Amino acid sequence: MGRVAKLQCVTCAGEFQAGEIDYTCPICGPMLGTLEVQYDYNQVRRELNRISLVANTRRDMWRYLPLLPVDNESLISPLSVGGTPLYHTPGLARELGVKSLWVKDDGRNPSASYKDRASAVGLAKALEKGARTVTAASTGNAAASWATLTSVAGLETIIFVPKTAPQAKLAQLLLFGATVIMVDGSYDQAFDLCCEAAAKWNWYNRSTAVNPYLGEGKKTGALELCEQLDFDPPDFVFVGVGDGCIYQGLAKGFREFHELGLIEKRPRLVGVQADGASPLVRAFENKAPVAEPMDAHTLADSIAVGVPRDQVKCLQAAYEGNGILTAVRDDDILWAIRTLARQAGVMAEPAGAVGLAGLRKLIQQGVVSADHSAAIMVTGNGLKDIVGVLTASDRKPLEVSPNLDSVARVLEQ
Amino acid sequence: MGRVAKLQCVTCAGEFQAGEIDYTCPICGPMLGTLEVQYDYNQVRRELNRISLVANTRRDMWRYLPLLPVDNESLISPLSVGGTPLYHTPGLARELGVKSLWVKDDGRNPSASYKDRASAVGLAKALEKGARTVTAASTGNAAASWATLTSVAGLETIIFVPKTAPQAKLAQLLLFGATVIMVDGSYDQAFDLCCEAAAKWNWYNRSTAVNPYLGEGKKTGALELCEQLDFDPPDFVFVGVGDGCIYQGLAKGFREFHELGLIEKRPRLVGVQADGASPLVRAFENKAPVAEPMDAHTLADSIAVGVPRDQVKCLQAAYEGNGILTAVRDDDILWAIRTLARQAGVMAEPAGAVGLAGLRKLIQQGVVSADHSAAIMVTGNGLKDIVGVLTASDRKPLEVSPNLDSVARVLEQ
Repeated sequence: MGRVAKLQCVTCAGEFQAGEIDYTCPICGPMLGTLEVQYDYNQVRRELNRISLVANTRRDMWRYLPLLPVDNESLISPLSVGGTPLYHTPGLARELGVKSLWVKDDGRNPSASYKDRASAVGLAKALEKGARTVTAASTGNAAASWATLTSVAGLETIIFVPKTAPQAKLAQLLLFGATVIMVDGSYDQAFDLCCEAAAKWNWYNRSTAVNPYLGEGKKTGALELCEQLDFDPPDFVFVGVGDGCIYQGLAKGFREFHELGLIEKRPRLVGVQADGASPLVRAFENKAPVAEPMDAHTLADSIAVGVPRDQVKCLQAAYEGNGILTAVRDDDILWAIRTLARQAGVMAEPAGAVGLAGLRKLIQQGVVSADHSAAIMVTGNGLKDIVGVLTASDRKPLEVSPNLDSVARVLEQ
Repeated sequence: MGRVAKLQCVTCAGEFQAGEIDYTCPICGPMLGTLEVQYDYNQVRRELNRISLVANTRRDMWRYLPLLPVDNESLISPLSVGGTPLYHTPGLARELGVKSLWVKDDGRNPSASYKDRASAVGLAKALEKGARTVTAASTGNAAASWATLTSVAGLETIIFVPKTAPQAKLAQLLLFGATVIMVDGSYDQAFDLCCEAAAKWNWYNRSTAVNPYLGEGKKTGALELCEQLDFDPPDFVFVGVGDGCIYQGLAKGFREFHELGLIEKRPRLVGVQADGASPLVRAFENKAPVAEPMDAHTLADSIAVGVPRDQVKCLQAAYEGNGILTAVRDDDILWAIRTLARQAGVMAEPAGAVGLAGLRKLIQQGVVSADHSAAIMVTGNGLKDIVGVLTASDRKPLEVSPNLDSVARVLEQ
């Protein structure tokens, strides 16, 4: 038997053997029938513990292999995914009024986003199945990540993106040799079309949520955060939310480390959406199990999602783990980009900075106080969205002629 | 006494105490009078050896602290610089016809370029001097790196760039709050203007080559490469060359590790310029000690340098260490960008990919053969130059309506 004990439907609790099913519960269907990966935790406890971690020289996400759904290590991508820096930012903590604050820079991954963690697991599963052609729908980051990892593995990669995908993410796809299908429609339409095409032509599908293994990669950021803080995670952890897959993945990571006895308490996980794309926040405020679709409008393209694909798991995780879902204005996201750069040295894309805006909001609301510690998960590099970054900056270049007088004149102004 | 034993002029061999002088030899002047940092290597040998490295848990460039010119560790930037991945690429080695090939991805640094290694040392030196205002001239990467690191340290940062600096690098500068002086002229004019302004207003100057400490940071990529390959570096190491500072830094790193007995032989270091900006290659071919200025034209903006500022050290290093300087066409650089992406999973900016083009050229010339091993230093992330990356890609997105028939139609073509 492999590492995965079973897959369980998050809605009907139906159980499936690993290998019996690839995507979602056939009874509950996509969206409601997303599957959760479960392990034999007694076995995991023997292989993954504080002693084994000290001895483990691997620095990337695969140091948590006993808690990942991959049996054959030869299928692991050669690219170095995870093991990203965690920065302590006492100055920013003081300014905001919290006890301590950490910033985890996941823009330092191979394709410059958190999505590489999920793609790395997806790639191993695709290779395990002998896939030759793989696909994904994405607002940009997941696809760019998928193309980066699958290209080196020699797979044919077909990506569905909405027409609004930013140029840098498109450039990544084209450079890595993916076939890019640019859908004249929204991300949600691109997503559905990708799933239909995958089913019709039998491509391996990395699209978020329908593939149960992606969240397993996404949980590794939580495991790393715990270990980097000597298994004493902060009171609150903030992360941007679009489809909800990273949120539920992080929540599962904290839950599993807690169940394994590696951490004493779980952080409260705060998922932050943009006001204009906040279906999960609305559902959360109504204590609803599912979200109402909405038209998504925000400058944070990576979380511009109106129909969140991992909504059931995400909302379950928030309710079960004393989590929070909250929304911020686009202006707050621009402040967060600027502040992360200047005070933490981290250049975040809009969706990568949104967690900091969420922290400020919860401080203003009194939910987070001066006694609390917090961490921000920065999920994407600002170099992926130069337009967003330039919008966030409050500066302009000063043009001069090549002489000192000209410099003196502009500096005086 | 601190770590640095002395500074020595590369032209007149005049010696200076550390702290006695900040930039170049007063007799030989800038360009000719660049200074080299020298240590007490007996002391270094005691503090930096294979046993101390095994025990060292630091993963970034500062694990080589005994060989770096910084005495006060509290001045080290909190950002994680260096410790970048080294990938073994057997498929690409086979295709090119070499024994083995490694790719070191320095686009994974905080500001996404190799320059962070130099900036980290520059920052520590600026803080040591009590600087409040710092400056640099740059084609983009060095400035973006400098602004990233100095911003978090609370320094005022004034950057001189030529008007041709790509948008992503400008965005980094503005986001991190630097004052950007955009000079209506070439990089070379921006450089001179920066040095004049630094002298006039007493700003700490990070501009390449005039500051003797930057090359010390730049050598750390060589040290890492050696250690990552268990102190058995490849026969050839390839890197892009503009001003020559990274080249001479890497050469010094290999030389010092060799002198310390940590490696048995030094790799032949191959500096690769673009045909349209190859003053150092022309000098090298004429065995000249200095380069003739030329008008620089290449799509690889980071090495579009007509007056190489670290030319004396760079040429000395090439002559002394059996190195090579060679030039490639812009078309070859585009091939290299595409190939690095698809076969190594690394997205390089043009100047970051140029090393691979140099390798192919030397294979074609018979200098590198099937018995040889090689490494490519990728010095900058492709996300910094999306236009360059898009030019390198041979693909275009396929536009479809949101239905399967439309997808089937474009895939058939």
